[in-house]
Amino acid sequence: MANFVGMMMGRDRANPSFREHGSDGRQHTFYVSDQSHYSVDKAAAMLGVGRANVRKISSDNRGRMNADDLAKVIETDIANGCVPCAVIATCGTTVLGAFDPLKQIASVCRKHDIWLHADGAFGGPALLHRQHRDLLDGIEYADSLTWDAHKVMGVPLTCSMLLCQHQGKLSKSVQQDAEYLFQVDHEDLNPGLRSIQCGRRNDAFKLWAAWQALGDNGWHQRLEQQFKLATFAADYIEQSPNFELCQRPDYLTICFKVYGVDVVELCEQLHVSGEALIGHANVRGDQVMRLVAVNPEISTSDLQRLFENIVAKQTSIISA
Amino acid sequence: MANFVGMMMGRDRANPSFREHGSDGRQHTFYVSDQSHYSVDKAAAMLGVGRANVRKISSDNRGRMNADDLAKVIETDIANGCVPCAVIATCGTTVLGAFDPLKQIASVCRKHDIWLHADGAFGGPALLHRQHRDLLDGIEYADSLTWDAHKVMGVPLTCSMLLCQHQGKLSKSVQQDAEYLFQVDHEDLNPGLRSIQCGRRNDAFKLWAAWQALGDNGWHQRLEQQFKLATFAADYIEQSPNFELCQRPDYLTICFKVYGVDVVELCEQLHVSGEALIGHANVRGDQVMRLVAVNPEISTSDLQRLFENIVAKQTSIISA
Repeated sequence: MANFVGMMMGRDRANPSFREHGSDGRQHTFYVSDQSHYSVDKAAAMLGVGRANVRKISSDNRGRMNADDLAKVIETDIANGCVPCAVIATCGTTVLGAFDPLKQIASVCRKHDIWLHADGAFGGPALLHRQHRDLLDGIEYADSLTWDAHKVMGVPLTCSMLLCQHQGKLSKSVQQDAEYLFQVDHEDLNPGLRSIQCGRRNDAFKLWAAWQALGDNGWHQRLEQQFKLATFAADYIEQSPNFELCQRPDYLTICFKVYGVDVVELCEQLHVSGEALIGHANVRGDQVMRLVAVNPEISTSDLQRLFENIVAKQTSIISA
Repeated sequence: MANFVGMMMGRDRANPSFREHGSDGRQHTFYVSDQSHYSVDKAAAMLGVGRANVRKISSDNRGRMNADDLAKVIETDIANGCVPCAVIATCGTTVLGAFDPLKQIASVCRKHDIWLHADGAFGGPALLHRQHRDLLDGIEYADSLTWDAHKVMGVPLTCSMLLCQHQGKLSKSVQQDAEYLFQVDHEDLNPGLRSIQCGRRNDAFKLWAAWQALGDNGWHQRLEQQFKLATFAADYIEQSPNFELCQRPDYLTICFKVYGVDVVELCEQLHVSGEALIGHANVRGDQVMRLVAVNPEISTSDLQRLFENIVAKQTSIISA
């Protein structure tokens, strides 16, 4: 829902009468890479902009949004009378873990005065690693940022954040007076005024508690271990005759082909036998395995055992 | 968010192209009583219909929507080219605990083929009481129903339900394919296909566990005790020379005037001194105290002590 809220702020900035009077019938549009998360299409349908008005911008061979294409599509849309509401840059795509080029995208947004929302649900926590925070270079130009603490950071579901550069904008989109409910609290600390849900779990408390326990350094160490596991997995796959690595990972997602078998069937067999719960994805037309190194509690020998299990299953499928 | 989803289903039924292409520029409208919950206005803003297009229908002297007025407003809107999306009937208003007349409202909806959403967030659980379920007479005509288990039923936040008469409609509004995520699960049991959030807490489990513990009879008993407390409070207030009851409660909310003091100040003093956390509301132009008998763990003597505390504070404010 954090992407929903960021996109809504963009919509309401592009057309401030939307929240009061609904759409005026002009075509409103969002922009996102063809590798983006499905929540963007879902949110566009909910927000009354429409799924068909989410422009899917092409990505390069590593899965990053092509900023030149973005500029062209926006210019064509504006020429055709569309109202661009927001560009959603993905920081850590779901399949390949790719990071869109924020600086280039931001410069397109600035030129046309369009809201830049960054979807860092998966990749935002890279900011907590002292070196790998470079993955989000240019994040300072984003108007809003989704950042989930329940994915890479391991905080129990749900703990999704929306950071915003502009104080007051969110209240304008969401706020609704309810004199009978909002009593006594100090306004700045009252999430009821800015949350889209009315019932409010105190999810922020979980993050606060985790941060008290780990500290900045603890988050760095946690990410360091996750990156180490991702690198180990990529190295192992590159050296194995049974697999082919799709690309060296920038982040924590490792996609690889498994020779000679139907990957979907392989994943199901591993799941049913209780050996591993691992997903599959389509990368450039191939069904591949998708391993995400989010659990810092496991060791490289756990990963090695996983790969041995995969090979054993692969062998038994081929010989069957 | 359950009201949001019910309203979205109404919007998408009234104008099926909304989710794909956004609004076509016609004025879309929602209908709700002037006693309704603020979530309706909030949802209208988010859904791209607009807060200004939420028609507030007058209510009678007990806070129930006036169905004749509803019919007139809808007819005028249709004559003016508006697209009615849904009527939202409130089952248990926030301030007075009033229940809108579902049968009469349903007949207006049927006549014009408009989606009927019932907001039973607060009042829905009355269905679990063997006699008081009559409060929701006509609920069988609602297309969708919000029912919160985290209010009257005491299940920890959040546990909000949306019940819908029409299988498949919700998927159409919300569903978004994400081949990389929805793997292995059986479709009918996969909330990811129908939830608006992507990250999914298993809130249904809390309700299931509570129902296993209490059973149908346990819910009845729980509500019986809540109704007993509400009746005790109303009787006490009627017999007290210090208070005036706004109306006999149909449900669990008791609103009453406290003579001779500013009720807002009184509530704040009770809160600050730690004696009671009790809210205030505006009823027909008066600031009144609003007591909600939702905690079945308290006894009538706890309520008596509360009233004695209020009187003591009232006396000290008057004599100050």
